[in-house]
Amino acid sequence: MNINEIEGGVCAPVGFRANGVHCGIRKNKIKKDFALIVSDVRASAAGVYTTNLVKGAPVLVTKRHLSDGYAQAIIVNSGNANTCNADGVEIAEGMCAMVERACGISAYDVAVASTGVIGQKLDLSPMLAHIDELCAGLGDNSRAAAEAIMTTDTVSKEVAVEFTIDGKKCRIGGIAKGVGMVCPNMATNLIFLSTDVAIAPDMLRKALSDDVKGSFNMLSVDGDQSTNDTCLILANGLAGNKLIQGRGGAYNRFIKALGYCTVKLCKMLAKDGEGATKLIECAVSGAKSLKAARTVCKSVIKSSLVKAAMFGADANWGRVLCAIGYSGADVDVHAIDVKFVSRAGQVKVCEDGHGLDFSEELAKKVLSEDEITIGIDLKSGNFRATAWGCDLTYDYVKINGDYRT
Amino acid sequence: MNINEIEGGVCAPVGFRANGVHCGIRKNKIKKDFALIVSDVRASAAGVYTTNLVKGAPVLVTKRHLSDGYAQAIIVNSGNANTCNADGVEIAEGMCAMVERACGISAYDVAVASTGVIGQKLDLSPMLAHIDELCAGLGDNSRAAAEAIMTTDTVSKEVAVEFTIDGKKCRIGGIAKGVGMVCPNMATNLIFLSTDVAIAPDMLRKALSDDVKGSFNMLSVDGDQSTNDTCLILANGLAGNKLIQGRGGAYNRFIKALGYCTVKLCKMLAKDGEGATKLIECAVSGAKSLKAARTVCKSVIKSSLVKAAMFGADANWGRVLCAIGYSGADVDVHAIDVKFVSRAGQVKVCEDGHGLDFSEELAKKVLSEDEITIGIDLKSGNFRATAWGCDLTYDYVKINGDYRT
Repeated sequence: MNINEIEGGVCAPVGFRANGVHCGIRKNKIKKDFALIVSDVRASAAGVYTTNLVKGAPVLVTKRHLSDGYAQAIIVNSGNANTCNADGVEIAEGMCAMVERACGISAYDVAVASTGVIGQKLDLSPMLAHIDELCAGLGDNSRAAAEAIMTTDTVSKEVAVEFTIDGKKCRIGGIAKGVGMVCPNMATNLIFLSTDVAIAPDMLRKALSDDVKGSFNMLSVDGDQSTNDTCLILANGLAGNKLIQGRGGAYNRFIKALGYCTVKLCKMLAKDGEGATKLIECAVSGAKSLKAARTVCKSVIKSSLVKAAMFGADANWGRVLCAIGYSGADVDVHAIDVKFVSRAGQVKVCEDGHGLDFSEELAKKVLSEDEITIGIDLKSGNFRATAWGCDLTYDYVKINGDYRT
Repeated sequence: MNINEIEGGVCAPVGFRANGVHCGIRKNKIKKDFALIVSDVRASAAGVYTTNLVKGAPVLVTKRHLSDGYAQAIIVNSGNANTCNADGVEIAEGMCAMVERACGISAYDVAVASTGVIGQKLDLSPMLAHIDELCAGLGDNSRAAAEAIMTTDTVSKEVAVEFTIDGKKCRIGGIAKGVGMVCPNMATNLIFLSTDVAIAPDMLRKALSDDVKGSFNMLSVDGDQSTNDTCLILANGLAGNKLIQGRGGAYNRFIKALGYCTVKLCKMLAKDGEGATKLIECAVSGAKSLKAARTVCKSVIKSSLVKAAMFGADANWGRVLCAIGYSGADVDVHAIDVKFVSRAGQVKVCEDGHGLDFSEELAKKVLSEDEITIGIDLKSGNFRATAWGCDLTYDYVKINGDYRT
């Protein structure tokens, strides 16, 4: 199956328009803070949300609005998470109502998301003052929307692919915003995907929730989620394929293309982790179960000691073993191989749980690249998994030491 | 009950001698790296150890040697963890055998611990060359032993108290070494306690394992343990109290004094976390269960975002709520109060899960102190717990970015 990357981000699929403007929630006038994504027609819609008990008000409202399986627009602000506010739900509903007034889309078909500081009141007035401008500018502006949802992200994140189903050209596009330290994050993970594939709401929901287990959930450990994490997908059916209503060839093609997009966004999100200088990928093979494989990679990728070692290009594989050991996964610690891999080559550092003599010079070279894979073979089964993260740097501390002020 | 702090550390109880020297495992000649603690007589002994699947060889050997409930000496090296080495157990046994030859204490009555880098061979020869010097210098040298077990610790840690049981003066003493970042640590937590109280091995074991649940385990989340974490206690009975063989008044006095020492060491360990500038205490009240109280404080104290905010003296209480929300504990998020407390005063920032208007100036003053308490009232029950940690700083990254080299 051919999956070709194309331009256009969240606007690449037929019938999607987007825009992003500065409305004034963020003080810095060159930073956009207000975004809108609209489908020309009502679309199948699905979402996955944070499992944090403390949920942002927009999460509650979006869940309710998507409960019938359909939506047509997504409105988003950055600079304020609208979380832990007494009037949060009212404000989030107010944002949806704005879209109804300005674009003629029922408020109930609008999803809403907010990202930024928790516990500060979100005022509707800057948004009310700019909603008409935001709507008037709707068009092929995926980049503007991607920029408007950024917080501490340093680059905007977009993806789009083209593929075929039933001989029809189909597209999936998306934008995403950053993830703090990737693991115990609060900067909030927001991912908005669009597609012109025709797919029933229940199958779309299944596709998305299966996908995130191996993609966005591998950026962060269960339970370490922000209050506002949200991943949404709208499928408007304008590609003209036969409506996907069950499993089979068409569904499989769709989930493959979806997985391509989400993994690509994962890597972008990981690489742009707060203060990060390196993308770290942890690839586990030989696990007794899928759960064990995922547990091990998540434990390694979120270890502060492993992350700091990667920053320092230090082949301290003992920290990798330690993180495997406390992961809680069922592993045989005397059957673990570890290697570090990058464009500069690869170096095996541990075999059967014991250290190998290796070239420190080569290890330094391998670990000095900006994309590094920690390869772990548990040699106890046939399951594998991959997780993505970044190094831990001085700048992470700097960014998070004084984020609010 | 009076508990008085006294001098003397691990040598304060009657019949304990200690020493620490530089033998050459660490390159820096002014850093001691080899320590010995000896009781004049065979003592009741108990230990708690890391639950990491990857265990240092010394942990395996110590467990075996203490399985009969008695020991008489503890030998320790820093600079090398003797973990993930094919010959690790042999080397650890070799260290115990050294003590038998030099001090005439059966190797089977010797506990052993190592701390430092994982996966590098530990050579016995530097220790063999200095074991006689180490033994010859045994005396009231708790400080030297405390220094010899340090790795990235910046200060040595000792405690000792005096109290009475059955009208007899009793003492508990101890030394400890540092804990990396406190949470996902590898620098290894080593705590060695001594007492002249007469107590049977099974009651000593019960006292220690109950105590650590509310003390050292509250420095680090379950499963986030190093490969070599070890807490040992020897009780030689020389205080002359009636042997404690069951629960009751004498046992209660003993565990109170023990708890005083372990909490004091916890705070020292937390405050000296790698790169730390502040001791952070998280005190939870109003929980539905003891488990919920402990889960919530551990989640907050280990949140990198909370820790970085404390470093920046930023009253970002949303991060506290977020960490409560993802902790997995059963809490009512709409009944949470949060305040920050220090010598400079206190500031309540959140009530019933919503933000309060508070003085940013006062908050900055409170959070600029070097000992801060995050007070959380869950208002849902009567259980409480306390956890200890530290802030996350530039220096943490610096120390851990290149620890091995």
